[in-house]
Amino acid sequence: MLRRSTIVAGLLVLVLGPASAQTSTAKAVGEIQFLEEFGTMWTFDAPPLAYWKATYDFAPDQAWLDHVRLASVRLPNCSSSFVSADGLVLTNHHCARSCISAVSPADTNYQETGFVAQTRAEEKACPNLWVDQLLSIEDVTDDVRAAITADAPARQVAQRDSITTVLEEACSADTGDHCQVVRFYQGGMYSLYRYHRFSDVRLVMAPEEHISFFGGDPDNFTYPRFDLDFTLLRVYQDGEPRPTEHYFPWSDHGADEGELVFVTGNPGSTGRLLTMAQMEYLRDADYPARLKSYQARLGVLRELAAESDEAARQYQNQIFGLENAHKAVSGYLRGLDDPEIMSRKASFESDFRDRIAADPELQARYGDAWDRIAEAQGELGDIAPLVRHYRFAGSQLFTMAGGLVRLPQQRALPDSLRLSQYRGEGMERIAGYVMGEVSIDPAMEKMTLAATLTAAQAELPADDPFLAALLQGRSPEVAAEALIDGTRLADQSYRALLFEGGTEAVNASDDPLLAAALTVEPLARAVADRAAELNAVISANAELVGQAIFSAYGTSLPPDATFTLRISDGVVKRYPMNGTVAPPVTNFYGLYARAAAFGHEPPWQLPERWLERRDLLDLETPLNFVSTNDIIGGNSGSPVINRNAEVVGLIFDGNIEQLPNRFIFTNEVSRSVSVHSAGIMEALRKIYDAAHLADELTGTTVTGSR
Amino acid sequence: MLRRSTIVAGLLVLVLGPASAQTSTAKAVGEIQFLEEFGTMWTFDAPPLAYWKATYDFAPDQAWLDHVRLASVRLPNCSSSFVSADGLVLTNHHCARSCISAVSPADTNYQETGFVAQTRAEEKACPNLWVDQLLSIEDVTDDVRAAITADAPARQVAQRDSITTVLEEACSADTGDHCQVVRFYQGGMYSLYRYHRFSDVRLVMAPEEHISFFGGDPDNFTYPRFDLDFTLLRVYQDGEPRPTEHYFPWSDHGADEGELVFVTGNPGSTGRLLTMAQMEYLRDADYPARLKSYQARLGVLRELAAESDEAARQYQNQIFGLENAHKAVSGYLRGLDDPEIMSRKASFESDFRDRIAADPELQARYGDAWDRIAEAQGELGDIAPLVRHYRFAGSQLFTMAGGLVRLPQQRALPDSLRLSQYRGEGMERIAGYVMGEVSIDPAMEKMTLAATLTAAQAELPADDPFLAALLQGRSPEVAAEALIDGTRLADQSYRALLFEGGTEAVNASDDPLLAAALTVEPLARAVADRAAELNAVISANAELVGQAIFSAYGTSLPPDATFTLRISDGVVKRYPMNGTVAPPVTNFYGLYARAAAFGHEPPWQLPERWLERRDLLDLETPLNFVSTNDIIGGNSGSPVINRNAEVVGLIFDGNIEQLPNRFIFTNEVSRSVSVHSAGIMEALRKIYDAAHLADELTGTTVTGSR
Repeated sequence: MLRRSTIVAGLLVLVLGPASAQTSTAKAVGEIQFLEEFGTMWTFDAPPLAYWKATYDFAPDQAWLDHVRLASVRLPNCSSSFVSADGLVLTNHHCARSCISAVSPADTNYQETGFVAQTRAEEKACPNLWVDQLLSIEDVTDDVRAAITADAPARQVAQRDSITTVLEEACSADTGDHCQVVRFYQGGMYSLYRYHRFSDVRLVMAPEEHISFFGGDPDNFTYPRFDLDFTLLRVYQDGEPRPTEHYFPWSDHGADEGELVFVTGNPGSTGRLLTMAQMEYLRDADYPARLKSYQARLGVLRELAAESDEAARQYQNQIFGLENAHKAVSGYLRGLDDPEIMSRKASFESDFRDRIAADPELQARYGDAWDRIAEAQGELGDIAPLVRHYRFAGSQLFTMAGGLVRLPQQRALPDSLRLSQYRGEGMERIAGYVMGEVSIDPAMEKMTLAATLTAAQAELPADDPFLAALLQGRSPEVAAEALIDGTRLADQSYRALLFEGGTEAVNASDDPLLAAALTVEPLARAVADRAAELNAVISANAELVGQAIFSAYGTSLPPDATFTLRISDGVVKRYPMNGTVAPPVTNFYGLYARAAAFGHEPPWQLPERWLERRDLLDLETPLNFVSTNDIIGGNSGSPVINRNAEVVGLIFDGNIEQLPNRFIFTNEVSRSVSVHSAGIMEALRKIYDAAHLADELTGTTVTGSR
Repeated sequence: MLRRSTIVAGLLVLVLGPASAQTSTAKAVGEIQFLEEFGTMWTFDAPPLAYWKATYDFAPDQAWLDHVRLASVRLPNCSSSFVSADGLVLTNHHCARSCISAVSPADTNYQETGFVAQTRAEEKACPNLWVDQLLSIEDVTDDVRAAITADAPARQVAQRDSITTVLEEACSADTGDHCQVVRFYQGGMYSLYRYHRFSDVRLVMAPEEHISFFGGDPDNFTYPRFDLDFTLLRVYQDGEPRPTEHYFPWSDHGADEGELVFVTGNPGSTGRLLTMAQMEYLRDADYPARLKSYQARLGVLRELAAESDEAARQYQNQIFGLENAHKAVSGYLRGLDDPEIMSRKASFESDFRDRIAADPELQARYGDAWDRIAEAQGELGDIAPLVRHYRFAGSQLFTMAGGLVRLPQQRALPDSLRLSQYRGEGMERIAGYVMGEVSIDPAMEKMTLAATLTAAQAELPADDPFLAALLQGRSPEVAAEALIDGTRLADQSYRALLFEGGTEAVNASDDPLLAAALTVEPLARAVADRAAELNAVISANAELVGQAIFSAYGTSLPPDATFTLRISDGVVKRYPMNGTVAPPVTNFYGLYARAAAFGHEPPWQLPERWLERRDLLDLETPLNFVSTNDIIGGNSGSPVINRNAEVVGLIFDGNIEQLPNRFIFTNEVSRSVSVHSAGIMEALRKIYDAAHLADELTGTTVTGSR
C-alpha cells in the first residue's frame, strides 16, 4: 500500500498556512495520521503536487493540469474524454447504451450488431446526450455561509438550496455556460463549477454488447475481465466536428506494470467522511433491509422466470440487475462488517473528536455534531421499518393509487411544503406516470404485492394500521389477489376520470385499492415527514463535521465524491487473489478462453465476427488491466492517462474487492479495471475495419481529412 | 450440495442390521443427520450402493467394483491407474519427479526437457518406485481387539502395534504379497489390506515441469488452473510389459458438466472424526504455532534471498515450499476458524454424546472418552511451548549435536523404550545423518538458529533452562554467532571421533554447541516423554470415540483417510468464485492467456515447444476441470472415471476452498482439480509426437504391437 500519511502530514502546514480560521483548528488537532484512507479523488483546484513529486517524482505544471481538465469531459451519468483534434470522444459502451439503441434503424439493433460510421456523414446524432467541459472552479463557501442564517436544520437546508440557485443562475446569466454549486466535505466547502455544454453528440463507433459486456452481470464488478467496453462519439458544433487542442493522444503501447497512471473522471458518491453512527446505520439497518428487499424481489422473479423459456427471457434482465445491486450492496456491507476497517474508522473519529474537545472554541462550534447525528440516526433506525413499509410499493397499480390520492393534495400546497418527490418537476413526472399508458402483468402484480406485504408482516406489529388497511385480516396472498382483481385502476380512462375529479372523485370511488391507498396516505406522509426532519438534522450536523475536518486538513484530504471532475493517481499493479496472483493485464487469449470454458453459453458468447476473425488478432494483445486508482460509479468512461497525458486505458469497472472502498480507501487488493488502449486499437483495425478511426486516434491522419 | 443425510439415514438400519453390538448402539443413538459432512471417501468393501442408486441411478455390479479396484494402483506416496492392456500407468508428473530426475542422462534434465520413449526399449527403469495393486480386504477387527488387553494407554498402543505386525507377517508369509493392517474410524475397525507389488516400473513419457507445474507454487491449491500434470509409466514383469485386463480405457471426449464421475485413489489423511477438543487444539495451539514457524523461516530465507540474484535462485524453492505449507495450513485453519463449520461439528458431537449418555451401557463404555481427550489436549496445550522449543532445531549443526548426545544413550535402551524417532530403522537413519556429509552454510546456520532462539524467547519465561543453556545471557544473534563460530561439528572427522567415542567422548568435549546439547537433552527428553504419554491417552480415547461412532453408523459413514484405496463419487461442476463463476473446465486458450498476462515470467513461462507448436493445437481443447469428488493429499494421480470406467481425467490438486475439507466435507465451493483426458490426448499428439502412446491409450493399436 502506498503510505501517504507522512507526506500528507508534511503538507498540512503548507495547506493550512493561508487561512487563519483553519490554522487555529489545525493547531488544535495537530498531526493526525490515517489520511490515506480518504483516497485519491483530488479536485483540479487542489492537486497534491508535493505528494506526487515525493511519491512519483512527477511535477506537472499548470498547463498540464489545465490541458487534462479540459480534455476530460462529462456525460450525463458518466465520464469521457476528447481523444482527437476533431472532437472524438471516448467513453464506455455502457455509457452510450441509450444512444446506441436510439439511433438504430427500425430493422436492426446496434447493441447487438455493433456500429461503425465509415464516413463522418454516417455518424448518428444521439438524442438527449451532451458533453460538459469544466471551464472553471470558484470557491463560493463564504457566499453560501453568509446566506445560511436560520437555526432550524430544515430551514438551513432551504436557505442553502436557495443561495445555490441564486449563484448558479447568476453565473449562467453572466457567461451563458452551465453552472453548478458543488458541496464538498458535507458542506465544509462550496465551489461554483462552470461547464461548457456541447449538445450535438454523435455516435461514431460501438462494438457489439456481447463483447463490450462479455460475461454480463455475473462478471460485473470482478476481475480478471475481458470486456471491450468502449464507444466512440464525436462532438459537433454548427454541424461540423468541433476541433479541440485539448485532447489526449493515444499511447503507443499502454502502461507497463508499476507505471504511474491517472484517472480523470467524475466519481459519483462515496461515504468516507460519514460518522460511525451513519455507517452503523447503513450496516445495521439500511443495507440489510435493502438486501432483504432484493432477495424478496429476486424470489418472485425467479419463480416467474421458472415458468417457461419465454418467461426466463422476459425476467432475465431484471434478475441480473437485482443480482448486481445485491452484489454491490453486499460489497459495501462487507466493508462495514470488516472489523479492521471499522476500527480504523473508529480510531480516526475518536482521535479527531478528542482533539476538537481539547480546544473550547472548537468544542463549542463542532463538539456536539457527532452525538446529534447519532441521536437522529438512532431514531431513524427505530422508525426504519415504518419508512420501509409505509409506501405505495410492490405493485404498479398500488403506486398509481397512491399518486391519485396524493396528486390533488400536494398540488394544493406551496412547492416548498410538498413531499420531496412532488417538488419542482416531480409533480408533473408523477402525474405523467399515473395518467400514462402502462402494461400491467396481473400475475406479477399479485406476486410482488404479496411478497411486499409478507415482508411488511414480518417486520411490523400485528396490529399495525398499514397492515390492517391492506390485509383486512386476510393472508398477503389472498389480500393481494383480491386487491389486484378488484381494482379498476389498470383502466387508463378510469384513472383519467379520477385524476380530473380530484380529491372528491377519489374519496367517492369504491375501488378497493384506492380505498387502501386513502388509509395508507396519512400514515406514509407522517413517517416521511419525520424521516425528512431527522435527515435534515443529520445533514446539518454532517455539515459541521465536514467543516471541522476540512478546517483541520483543508484540501490535503480529498473530498467525498460529488460527480465532479477529479484526478486520481495510481499504478498498474497485480494483486493477491484466490490464493494466487491476479495478473496486471488480461489479453485476447483470455477472452476466447473464458468463452470456451463456458461452452460459449450466454453471457459468455462472442459475436460471430469475433469467431470468424480470430486468426487476424494477435491474441497476446492486452485487453483489460488493473490499477490502484481511486474510482467509484460515475467514473465509468474515465480516461486512464500516463504522465505524458496519453491514453493508456479506459476505466469501466472495479474489482469486487474495491466495493468496500466506498467507506475507506485501501489498495492492497482493491483495483480499478480498465480497457487497455492496445486492445481497442487491435479491435478497431482487425475486427471492425475501422482503420480510419484507429488512424485518427493515433494521429496518423491529417486533422479533418475525412 | 448433495443432501445425502436422508438416504444414509435409511441405510442405517440395513448396515447395522447384521451386527448385534452395533444394532444396540444404533438404536440408542437413533437417526442422526449430519452424515454428509463426513464426505465420500468410500472403501471398496463398503460401497454405498443404495445411495449411488438413489442419487445417480447408478448401480454397479461386483465385477465393476472389482475391475475398478484392480485398475486403481498405488505408488509409494501417490495414486495411479492402469490405462492400457500393456501395463501403462497414468499418474501425476509431480508423483514421478524423483524417477524423472533419476533417469535423466548426465547432460540433460528430463524435468526441464520432458521425455518421450519412442519405443519400449527406450522406457527407463525408475529406481525405488513400485506400484501396489489391492487384491483383497479382510476385516480383522476381532483379532486386533482380542490382542489389546492392557489398561494403560501406552501399553495398549504397543499391543496394537504388535498384533498388527503379527497379522501382516502371517499374511505375507501365506501369500507372498504385501500386507498391511489398516486402522479405520480411529480404531473402530481394522482391516487387512493385501497388495500385489510391481517393482519394475519404467518411465514412458513426461512433459516438461514448466507445463506440468505451470504457475508453480503461487497457483498451487487454486483454480482456474492450466497444468498438464501427468506422466506415463509402465509396469514390467520378467523384463516384459505386464499385460493386464484390468485397466481403464480412455474416454472419447471426457465428462460433461453435471456428469457423475468417480475418483479412485488413496487419500492420505483427514480429521473428520476428531473431537472438538482435538480440533480446538489444532486451531488454538498447533496450527498457529506452525504458521508462526513458517513465517519466521520465510523471514530468514527472504532476507538471504534478497542478497543477490544467485541467492534468490538458491532459496527460491525453499521459499516456495514454505509459502505453500503456509497456504495449506492457513486453509485448514480457515476451516477451524469458520464459525459455521465449528458449530456443525459441535452440534454433531453434543447430539451424539447426548444419545450415548441416554444408554447406561454405552455411557459406561464410551461416555468419558471425549472428556479424557479434552483433558489430555489441555495439558498438551499447556506444555506446547516446551514441546515446540525444547528441540535441537534451527541449525543443522545443533541437530547433529543432539544426535551425537542421544545416539549412545538411545542405543543402550531396548527398542521399545527408545524415543519414537530412534525406534526401528530410525536409529540408523539418524546415525547416518550425523555421520554423513553435509554442506553447511554458516551464515544461514546463524540466522536460522538466531530466529529459532528469538521465537523461543518470545514464548518461554525469562528463567527458562533451555534458553539459559543456549543464550547464557547473550542476545539470540550473539549467542548463535558464538555457537556456530565456536563449534567444530562442521568437521565430519570430528563428528566421527565423537561418535566412536560415545558418551564419554561427548561429555569430555569442550565444543560449545555440544555442551549446550548436553544440557538441553534431558529437558527435551522429559517433555517428549510427557507428550508421548498424553498422545497415547488421546489415541486410546479417540479409538473409543471411533468405536462409538462406527458402532452407530457402521460403514454408512466413510472412515477418515488412511492412504488406502477409496472410491469417491462426484459431479463435474462450476462454482461461485470471486463474485462470479469459476468455469467447469479450462482450456489451452487459458494457458496461453495466463502465460502472456504475466509476460511469460516464471513460474508462468511455457516450454519452447509449446510456443513453437501453438498453431497445431485446437486451443478450445479442455485442459483442466473441477468436480465435487472428495479428495486430499495422497489422491494425487488418481484417475477420474465415468460410469463406464473410462478415464475422463486425472486428479492433481484441489482448489483453495477445498482445504477446510480436512475437517468437514462441503461441496458448495470446494472442488477437486483434474487434468482433462482430452488435454492429455491433444498434447501427446500435437506437442510431443507421441501418437504411439495416444493410440495405445485409445486402444487403436493392437496390444503389444510396439
